[in-house]
Amino acid sequence: MSLKVSETKLAFGGEQRKYTHYSEVLQCDMAFSIYLPSNKQQKEIPLIWWLSGLTCTDDNFSQKSGFQRLAEQHQVAVIIPDTSPRGENVADDDAYDLGQGAGFYIDATKQPWSEHYKMYTYITEELTGIASTLVPHFSGKESIMGHSMGGHGALVIGLKNTKRFKAISAFSPILTPTQVPWGIKAFSTYLGEDQDSWKSWDASELIKVTEAPPIMISQGTQDGFYPEQLNETIFLKNATENNQLINYKKEEGYDHSYFFISTFLEEHFNFHINQLS
Amino acid sequence: MSLKVSETKLAFGGEQRKYTHYSEVLQCDMAFSIYLPSNKQQKEIPLIWWLSGLTCTDDNFSQKSGFQRLAEQHQVAVIIPDTSPRGENVADDDAYDLGQGAGFYIDATKQPWSEHYKMYTYITEELTGIASTLVPHFSGKESIMGHSMGGHGALVIGLKNTKRFKAISAFSPILTPTQVPWGIKAFSTYLGEDQDSWKSWDASELIKVTEAPPIMISQGTQDGFYPEQLNETIFLKNATENNQLINYKKEEGYDHSYFFISTFLEEHFNFHINQLS
Repeated sequence: MSLKVSETKLAFGGEQRKYTHYSEVLQCDMAFSIYLPSNKQQKEIPLIWWLSGLTCTDDNFSQKSGFQRLAEQHQVAVIIPDTSPRGENVADDDAYDLGQGAGFYIDATKQPWSEHYKMYTYITEELTGIASTLVPHFSGKESIMGHSMGGHGALVIGLKNTKRFKAISAFSPILTPTQVPWGIKAFSTYLGEDQDSWKSWDASELIKVTEAPPIMISQGTQDGFYPEQLNETIFLKNATENNQLINYKKEEGYDHSYFFISTFLEEHFNFHINQLS
Repeated sequence: MSLKVSETKLAFGGEQRKYTHYSEVLQCDMAFSIYLPSNKQQKEIPLIWWLSGLTCTDDNFSQKSGFQRLAEQHQVAVIIPDTSPRGENVADDDAYDLGQGAGFYIDATKQPWSEHYKMYTYITEELTGIASTLVPHFSGKESIMGHSMGGHGALVIGLKNTKRFKAISAFSPILTPTQVPWGIKAFSTYLGEDQDSWKSWDASELIKVTEAPPIMISQGTQDGFYPEQLNETIFLKNATENNQLINYKKEEGYDHSYFFISTFLEEHFNFHINQLS
């Protein structure tokens, strides 16, 4: 086991830690961050997963969202994976929306990507195992949230594991990746041209056939990627047809940035905590 | 007047704006950030100045502290200057603690620095004039806070202008720059070897002779720069001898980072708001 703490910082009474480890699934060195609340009362604490967007690492949410205040207040642990495999030996692309920093939380099947790009299995299996050893007094209850590409990731992972995740929420998510430029580019590269193989990674497809946990989505109206990449029409239509209630909230004047996320994060935390209690 | 808005983002209901302008005092193009609360009730609002530390720009506090939540809650505007003059034609040094990003909030007297490095006059005169035009319903009440080099800046500017600033506070400030490596390096470079000329830029000297507004200081015990650069002994001794009460708080286990700042920022805002009401 190569797991090492590379950084520990106090924040709002709890510990913001950064770890490095060798991932057997991804076949490369990885980093992730985790926040452990102070847990002064030695209670059982739940775990929220945060998945970040294109170009991000685990640092963006750690440094820009202010989430530690809420995690300590509610006594919940938060784990933040990186957004792709990393390293000189890992396939990459010059574009910001493909390769390193753009793993899309799926398991690639096409060479050369399939050698390392297995973010779905990394998160749902390998990192899940590690997380369970890091959270003292872990209650076993989990939920998942994310932003943009990470909003897509949160919905896909949550909808593929509906018994495991008690709530799903997303800021500005890619809701129908098989129909928008970001998703088509990534899926055709990582999965190949057979579009049938794309469907199991599309929240708008998954929502048709699952009994989903509560879902909340926030979308800023001044988001430069909305509606082109983030169109909600198909997702909401399919959810309605399958009798899934979605709390889809448009926020007037907000954009795609962490200023938007930090503004509405308290509302998302309250939503998750209600399901994790 | 070259003042231009380069960015406007909604955050917690108010506007986080970034401006660029040509500074006559600094003789170069500059950027700064300002937060304007929503002011839905059209009340008079006060202004807090935030001064950042070495290597920072106005972006660090804007993006990492989470201050917008507090500024909107208390309906106060916040202005964040850059930390030095900038640009290809501005003198610089390869070291992180000298030149661009390290203006120390003083007016340099030695060539080549004296041509541009006039951060004290820039902030207290030129940017003050600009700020007064940007804050709608400005109450005219101001206070000042900062971090590290910016904590030194907040104390020096506040103590040189005690009628103007109603409160001063600092995170991990350089309290006696004339006696510590960072300050000695900067002052000998910007002001020359005559150490008498340094004293008017040293909070530990100024606190001897002024009737200061309320002052609060937070210092983490695990700060890697403490006590070498941030020693409080002389400042507190001189303050006591001049009957100045300083609320100097040591915070166990916290370091020099924005995780420390964000944790205790609410306490600092409450302290300022009490004096600005």
